[in-house]
Amino acid sequence: MKVKLASNYGFCFGVKRAIKIAQDYKNSSTMGPLIHNQDEINRLKKDFNVGLYQDLKEVKDNDTIIIRTHGIPKNDLQKLKDHNAKVINATCPFVTTPQQIVKKMSEESYSILIFGDKEHPEVKGVASYAKDSSDVHIILDIDELKDIKFKKNKIATVAQTTKKKEKYLEIINYLILRNKEIRVFNTICDATFENQDAARELSKEVDVMVVIGGKHSSNTKQLHAICLESCKNSHLIENESEIKEEWFLNKSLCGVTAGASTPDWIIQKVVKKIENI
Amino acid sequence: MKVKLASNYGFCFGVKRAIKIAQDYKNSSTMGPLIHNQDEINRLKKDFNVGLYQDLKEVKDNDTIIIRTHGIPKNDLQKLKDHNAKVINATCPFVTTPQQIVKKMSEESYSILIFGDKEHPEVKGVASYAKDSSDVHIILDIDELKDIKFKKNKIATVAQTTKKKEKYLEIINYLILRNKEIRVFNTICDATFENQDAARELSKEVDVMVVIGGKHSSNTKQLHAICLESCKNSHLIENESEIKEEWFLNKSLCGVTAGASTPDWIIQKVVKKIENI
Repeated sequence: MKVKLASNYGFCFGVKRAIKIAQDYKNSSTMGPLIHNQDEINRLKKDFNVGLYQDLKEVKDNDTIIIRTHGIPKNDLQKLKDHNAKVINATCPFVTTPQQIVKKMSEESYSILIFGDKEHPEVKGVASYAKDSSDVHIILDIDELKDIKFKKNKIATVAQTTKKKEKYLEIINYLILRNKEIRVFNTICDATFENQDAARELSKEVDVMVVIGGKHSSNTKQLHAICLESCKNSHLIENESEIKEEWFLNKSLCGVTAGASTPDWIIQKVVKKIENI
Repeated sequence: MKVKLASNYGFCFGVKRAIKIAQDYKNSSTMGPLIHNQDEINRLKKDFNVGLYQDLKEVKDNDTIIIRTHGIPKNDLQKLKDHNAKVINATCPFVTTPQQIVKKMSEESYSILIFGDKEHPEVKGVASYAKDSSDVHIILDIDELKDIKFKKNKIATVAQTTKKKEKYLEIINYLILRNKEIRVFNTICDATFENQDAARELSKEVDVMVVIGGKHSSNTKQLHAICLESCKNSHLIENESEIKEEWFLNKSLCGVTAGASTPDWIIQKVVKKIENI
């Protein structure tokens, strides 16, 4: 069976990059889990002896520490350096961008608004780059804006990379009507939508479609639903053991895509098995 | 009869300021009509000998020329100076702001978008301040955006002062989704809405309301309609000759407001006549 992979699938650019970095630094430790997939964390431990610290206090002098895609707060980075830790920065470049924007804009005397979840590590890291920590405001909803007192009447805005654009625009529109200058940085990452768009396109040109991912992952279920719109023969599996040969009877081309937390090696096993049918 | 004026009425701040400037410079000439009210232009001619040029070519050496609230293009300003004209700048400060923003932002390598009417003198003036005239784009509608090729992926936006905010936001939202950085300057002036808000408030606390303005002016008719919502005894007049004493029978407080092209001296005559009833 001929297989065609979607033009975008599975891990986003930043996660792929971080895993490659971890593999390049054997015997290192990540500060927090590198990705939300235990199988993959186990594999990194087993094959590359990449450990996992949950807390800065666990770090020992001269450790090699990998900063995960979310980034970390500026002060935590300093603490690692104080430990003489060798710091390997796997912060996603799409997260480094809002960190640097917040740094530069607060230096240029803008009030800072972050659209995101104040408990999320990415947002904590981004916010930490502001010069004036009392003039960085983090909100998830437009209703929170009315209680905010910005120190300046020029405001720079960034968004957590995984947030929805529609809500970000709502917040920006509110600000524009009430302030002289709003400097809007579009820091939202299209990875999720790119996977969906690619699955939609691919499902139109194949006879059968296989979607790999957790059966309870909303992200994967959404990919499956999108594929079913154009290709009735779309199947959702967690790994290669669930593949059924009958799906491919009288078919010539099989499309494959995967949810955002599916490692490449699981995808490769699936592809190989289908190619051998 | 006791009279209370609305907290905002008649000419906007910029027009009031320009008329005061014209009165201060007797024997000068304005470049284009100072306001859209012939009675007022006649008065300035009769009482202060303020003339009117329609074209730069009419300007004679050493003339004193008043720049009207809309401003003029940078090159035209230079031409006036080349004539050794004494230039008196009555450009509204709310128009000077977008001129200076366009200058600064184009120097900082932003593409420029102006939401406004490209034939309007204010917009022509604002656009003229861009360093790169081929990267200033003027639109009235979001549909025009798709044909625009910005040279940069960072765009600064300003709006003609009299435009509606809702359409400006639509345009900005479109740009945010398609570019890395949008620097939004809210240059829309609230004067019209401030007159309406003030009329609404005043009409709630008075027994009778008088609205002064052209009977065919949509701006004045709208003020009248707003007043009628809270005060049934609201009357629209063009000048003091139309006042009827019966309107004030058994009334104790009369509110007065005026449309955007009603000169203060007409308003004062009306107020005086009502106060003497």
